[in-house]
Amino acid sequence: MRDEAVRAFVPGHVTAFFAPHHHAEPARAGSTGAGITLDDGVTISVSRAAGTSIVVNGESISMEPVDRVLTDLELTAHIQAETPLSIGTGFGVSGAIALGTALAGNVLCDGTWSENELISLAHRAEVEAGTGLGDVVAQARGGVPIRLSPGDPLHGRLDGVPRTTRIEYLTYGDVSTPEVLAGDTEPIESAGSAALSRIQAQPSLEVLFGAARTFARDAGLETETVAGVIEEVQANGGEAAMAMLGETVLALGTGLSDAGYSPAVCHVHPGGAMLLDGDSEVE
Amino acid sequence: MRDEAVRAFVPGHVTAFFAPHHHAEPARAGSTGAGITLDDGVTISVSRAAGTSIVVNGESISMEPVDRVLTDLELTAHIQAETPLSIGTGFGVSGAIALGTALAGNVLCDGTWSENELISLAHRAEVEAGTGLGDVVAQARGGVPIRLSPGDPLHGRLDGVPRTTRIEYLTYGDVSTPEVLAGDTEPIESAGSAALSRIQAQPSLEVLFGAARTFARDAGLETETVAGVIEEVQANGGEAAMAMLGETVLALGTGLSDAGYSPAVCHVHPGGAMLLDGDSEVE
Repeated sequence: MRDEAVRAFVPGHVTAFFAPHHHAEPARAGSTGAGITLDDGVTISVSRAAGTSIVVNGESISMEPVDRVLTDLELTAHIQAETPLSIGTGFGVSGAIALGTALAGNVLCDGTWSENELISLAHRAEVEAGTGLGDVVAQARGGVPIRLSPGDPLHGRLDGVPRTTRIEYLTYGDVSTPEVLAGDTEPIESAGSAALSRIQAQPSLEVLFGAARTFARDAGLETETVAGVIEEVQANGGEAAMAMLGETVLALGTGLSDAGYSPAVCHVHPGGAMLLDGDSEVE
Repeated sequence: MRDEAVRAFVPGHVTAFFAPHHHAEPARAGSTGAGITLDDGVTISVSRAAGTSIVVNGESISMEPVDRVLTDLELTAHIQAETPLSIGTGFGVSGAIALGTALAGNVLCDGTWSENELISLAHRAEVEAGTGLGDVVAQARGGVPIRLSPGDPLHGRLDGVPRTTRIEYLTYGDVSTPEVLAGDTEPIESAGSAALSRIQAQPSLEVLFGAARTFARDAGLETETVAGVIEEVQANGGEAAMAMLGETVLALGTGLSDAGYSPAVCHVHPGGAMLLDGDSEVE
């Protein structure tokens, strides 16, 4: 039993394209697709408390998937999260806090969940809350994950684009994931499957960005603002695409700054979610 | 096409226990078991050259798995590796150099292998050369990997002990992996399966070290020197075990220093193998 806070870091994850997969069992539900994990992520600190509270960048919020994770761990805790990313704009912040809470919470209560079980816990919490379908498994892996089949680590299958790079991004606003998923998802499914075939045939960053642009248009998700920015980046010889789901533009290398914008700058996160506090340093 | 060197970092990997699994297809062969990846690892630099050469810590050596990887990538290259670990003492150095060569070599020749395909390439090269059975898939994952079923990422299945910690180690000498694997492996298989059941039932670091000690004795692999050191660490309330395969003692936290030794100190590596040079910084 520990009294100190335990911390975890979980990278941000921008989905480039996806196809939702519904299933009665949350462990088998999720999405196929691909995206990029970012070293701009979330640092989550979990400490014991009489009641559960969640504070992100100093602001108290409620977050259903995090509550679900804590319930499954049989833990009441104070969750404090710090991140340069904003919620609801396509960076997987809720998935990051759910996964970080699972990893750190398990250490805090001296739990005996395995790594896959904790990833599954956070994945199911996101699916059940309707806040995400594929962020958690991608954030656990790191790099540029390709989600070949949906679900938690026991049911899903992942590959990756074996590249690292500088990434730039600009956020204009949020898009409601639950609203998009509640609408007609047939165009998303068909565009997402087509994009997945392209990245499987040629797992490169250029194909990822191209497939993401085609997906956003064919799925009817691209906004006018985003389309305009992407056009300018491409006119300057760069690669850019829209984040799923957020009014956010992601560019390869110096794509946005070359086009005259002042973007946030980060890099592909190589390793995926990680605990920051070890057993033997604390005990 | 690139002319600059491309670099990768691959963590060291100490196997705690294992059961070899033979199969005619190298992608399905390998081992089950568990181990610890270390942030003491290998930095591999791959650059184009008219002929292939491998230099580790300034010394020219031949390394069959690395030659196999380069042949599959259709690349001749100069491989330069730097590491605080020594070869043949149970740290997976050959697996690290094979995997790092695959990851960096693919970027160097602008290849279109996926991440899983590159891990498979290095895994098969190790199996075919007889130099390793499970290091590569563990080194690709990072953390404290449990190898639930043998083989490359398409055939094998991994989980992990979700903990991080300080690790200490001391090396007394090398043990020949090919020699051990050429002997009677029945005691190893049966002790390895028993140890795997224990860590699956309770994925903690304490169980990992306990299962590793029982394995080393039951499999007849523990040396007298190693047994003596482990006994002293345990007498001081610490956890230690022998590396498979090397005359190396690994201890949790400050186990070896508490017992009066002057060990090397490192930590669990959270992320697994990673490219150090990105696309957009170099181009």
